[in-house]
Amino acid sequence: MSEKNSPTGSPGESPVSPLAPPGGFPALPEISGVRLATASAGVRYSGRPDVMLAELAPGTVIAGVFTRSATRAAPVLDCESKIGRSATGGAAILVNSGNANAFTGSHGSASVKAITGAVADLLSIDPDRVFTSSTGVIGEPLPHDRILAVLDRLKAGLAPDRAEDAARAIMTTDTFPKGAGREVELGGGTVRIAGIAKGSGMIAPDMATMLVYIFTDARISQPVLQQMVSASTARTFNCITVDSDTSTSDTLLVAATGTADAPEIASAGSPEGRAFHGALHEVMLDLAHQVVRDGEGASKFVEIRVSGAANDADAHKVAMSVANSPLVKTAIAGEDPNWGRIVMAVGKSGAAADRDRLSIRLGDILVAEKGWVAAGYTEEDGAAYMKRQELVISIDLGLGEGQAVVWTCDLTHRYIEINADYRS
Amino acid sequence: MSEKNSPTGSPGESPVSPLAPPGGFPALPEISGVRLATASAGVRYSGRPDVMLAELAPGTVIAGVFTRSATRAAPVLDCESKIGRSATGGAAILVNSGNANAFTGSHGSASVKAITGAVADLLSIDPDRVFTSSTGVIGEPLPHDRILAVLDRLKAGLAPDRAEDAARAIMTTDTFPKGAGREVELGGGTVRIAGIAKGSGMIAPDMATMLVYIFTDARISQPVLQQMVSASTARTFNCITVDSDTSTSDTLLVAATGTADAPEIASAGSPEGRAFHGALHEVMLDLAHQVVRDGEGASKFVEIRVSGAANDADAHKVAMSVANSPLVKTAIAGEDPNWGRIVMAVGKSGAAADRDRLSIRLGDILVAEKGWVAAGYTEEDGAAYMKRQELVISIDLGLGEGQAVVWTCDLTHRYIEINADYRS
Repeated sequence: MSEKNSPTGSPGESPVSPLAPPGGFPALPEISGVRLATASAGVRYSGRPDVMLAELAPGTVIAGVFTRSATRAAPVLDCESKIGRSATGGAAILVNSGNANAFTGSHGSASVKAITGAVADLLSIDPDRVFTSSTGVIGEPLPHDRILAVLDRLKAGLAPDRAEDAARAIMTTDTFPKGAGREVELGGGTVRIAGIAKGSGMIAPDMATMLVYIFTDARISQPVLQQMVSASTARTFNCITVDSDTSTSDTLLVAATGTADAPEIASAGSPEGRAFHGALHEVMLDLAHQVVRDGEGASKFVEIRVSGAANDADAHKVAMSVANSPLVKTAIAGEDPNWGRIVMAVGKSGAAADRDRLSIRLGDILVAEKGWVAAGYTEEDGAAYMKRQELVISIDLGLGEGQAVVWTCDLTHRYIEINADYRS
Repeated sequence: MSEKNSPTGSPGESPVSPLAPPGGFPALPEISGVRLATASAGVRYSGRPDVMLAELAPGTVIAGVFTRSATRAAPVLDCESKIGRSATGGAAILVNSGNANAFTGSHGSASVKAITGAVADLLSIDPDRVFTSSTGVIGEPLPHDRILAVLDRLKAGLAPDRAEDAARAIMTTDTFPKGAGREVELGGGTVRIAGIAKGSGMIAPDMATMLVYIFTDARISQPVLQQMVSASTARTFNCITVDSDTSTSDTLLVAATGTADAPEIASAGSPEGRAFHGALHEVMLDLAHQVVRDGEGASKFVEIRVSGAANDADAHKVAMSVANSPLVKTAIAGEDPNWGRIVMAVGKSGAAADRDRLSIRLGDILVAEKGWVAAGYTEEDGAAYMKRQELVISIDLGLGEGQAVVWTCDLTHRYIEINADYRS
C-alpha cells in the first residue's frame, strides 16, 4: 500500500529520466543561518538516507503553501497551523521519505507531535517552530521511533553544505535529486537562495506529491515573504502536471533567516522586493520544471502556451485541459502531430472558445487557423517537429487578452509500468 | 490526423474487448416505422460498410443530447438546431464513419447541407427533418460526394431488421457492435425500444466520442421524450468515462415513430410514462456500459459507488475524480488494492470530505474506515478481489445523503499502444 509503487519499495532503481538537467545537481549557494543533515533511519527503505533535518537560525521567518486536498496528511495539517505564528527563537524542518503518515487516523497526529517535540528538545526551540513532512507509504502508521533514534546523529552532522544530500534523502520514485539556487545583489549586499524538491508522480495543480524547501538569508517579514511565495506558486508549481493527480502531502516551505548583509526587504513592490521576488520566482520555476522532467515515464518536456483567451483563468483552464488530456499526451509520446486532439481538449475545457477563431502552432509551425488546417502546413513538418525532446504547443483562442503557460510531459508505457506492473 | 488512431486507418483489427458482452449482438425488437440500410461508400475505410441510413415514419418525434464541447463539429451544430422543431412528415438519420467532419471550417457546414438536402430529396421529406452524424478523422474535408453516390443503394436496401448492420457501419476503433433493446407493456399494447451505439475512446462525461441512436414506436410528444432522454443521460452516458477526454462529435438521438398499438404517453409522471421511461433508461444504461466495456485497452469493468456525500453533485465529483485518476486506473490494471490512491482521488475532487469519516470497500470487503485501514482487513483479501474482471469500489463519505454511481475501466499498456504507438 504505497503512495507510489516501486518494484521493491526502494527508490532509485529506475534509470535517470532522459529529461534530467545535464550536469547533475547544481552548485548551490550556502545560506547563512541554515545547517542541514541527513541520516538513514530505515523508515521503510534500507541502505539509504531517508531523513533530513534543517536547523534554522533564531528569527527565521517561514512561509508555506500546501496541498488543497480534502484528505491532507497529518504533517500538512500541523504545518498549516504553524505558518504565520511569531518567529521567536530558532526553527527546524524535518522530512522523512518512505512513509507519508497519511490516512493513519489518530496515530498520524501523535507521530507528528512526538517528532516535533523531540526535535524541539534536541535543538532547544519551541515545538511550534518545528515543521515536518512525510512522503511514501499511505495508510501505515509512521514508525516515528526510528526517526527519534537518529536525531542525535542528525544534530552531530549539521553542516551548511548538505543541500544535495538533503535532496537525495527526500526522494521516493524520483530518478534524480532536484536543486536550484540564485544570488541577487540588493542595496550593496548579496541575498542568496537555495532550494531542493522532490516529486515525480501524483503531480498536478494545487501542489501534488511535491515537497519543496527553499532557504534564503533575506531579511524579510513573514507576510511579505508569504505574499511572494503564494503569488509565484500560482505561476510555477500550480502550472505543472504529470498525471492530473494530487497528493495528500504536498508542502512548500520557504525559510528566510534574515542573516544577509543586505537591507531588509520592506515590501513586495519595492525595488529590493521586486529583485528578490524575481530571483525567488526563478528558483521556484526551475524546481517546478525539474519535477516535470522527472515525471514518471516522461520522454518529452512540453510547454503549453495559451493566448487570446477571454481572461487568464480561461487560458489556464485550456492549457491544463490540453496538458492533462490522455489522448494529447499519448499522441506526444507517439510523436504524432495530432492537432485534432488539441482541438478536442480545447473544446472540453469549459473555457470560452470559438472553433473558427482558434489557431494552433507546434513550435513556430502554424498548424491550424480559423477553424481549419493552415495553408501550407504539411504532416511532414509537424511530424519532424514532434521528434524533439522539448516541445512548445501554442494555442491562440482569438477572443481576448487572457494568457497562461503550463508545463507537462508525455504519457508513455513507462508510466503504466511504474504504476501498474509492480505491486506495492 | 484522426480523431482516433488505428494502425491502418481501418477499424476492426483489434481483438474484441475481453469485456464484450458474451453472446454477441443481442436480438433487438423490430420497431415499426423504422427502416435501416447500410452501404460501403469508401469515405476512408475500404471493404466495409461506413454509412447507415435510418428512414423514420411521418410524425416521428426526435429528442437529442449533444456534446458540450466548445469546438462542436458541423453535424452536431446542425442537429442541435433541428431538435424540437415541428414533426411534420417523415424523417431520417444518416451517419458515416471514417471522417468526423470536425474542424473543417466552412467546408463542414457545406457538406452537411449537401447531405441533408440529398437525403431529403431521396425520401421526399423536409431537409430540416434530416439529421446527420460523422465520426472519424478530424480536420479533413468530408468527401460527401462518396456518400451521395450511395444514397440510391441505401434507399433500395432499407429494411426493418438491419440494426446489427447499422451498429457495425458506425464503428471506428470499436471492437464489437453495440445494441440493446426492451419491450414494455403499456395499457394492453406493447412498446418496443431498440438502440445502437459506437464509442470506445475519447469517452467522458458531457457525452464524448459516442454516437447513440435509439428507436421506439412509442406515441409520445417531443417535449416529454426530451425530458426523459435528458434526465437519463445524466445518469447513464454522463456517468461513464474511459479517458476523461470529450469528443467534438457526440450525439444521442432518440426517435419515436408513434406507431405502437399502445396508448399515448401523456407525461413522464403518468404510469405509462414511468414504465416507458424505465425501459428507455435500461436501454441507455446498457449501451453506456457497452461503451465502457469497449474502452480502449480495457481489461476491467469498474463501478464506482459514492454515498454519504454532502449532496449528489459532490458525490458525482468524487466518483468521477476516482474514475478518471490515472493512478487509480493503473493500480486497477495492476490488480493492486491500492486504497491510498482512492483516498488521494477523493481528496483532490473538490467535494467536501473528511478524512476521518471516510470508508472504502472493495466489493463487500471493508478496506478503510474512520481515517484508517479497517480492523481485520488484509492485503491478501484485497489482492484476491482485484483479480476479478468486474469490480465495485464503494466510497462512503459519512457526511450526508448525496449519492452517485459511475462506470469506468482500467488504464493499460494497450491504451498507450492504441493511442501512441501507431501514427494516424
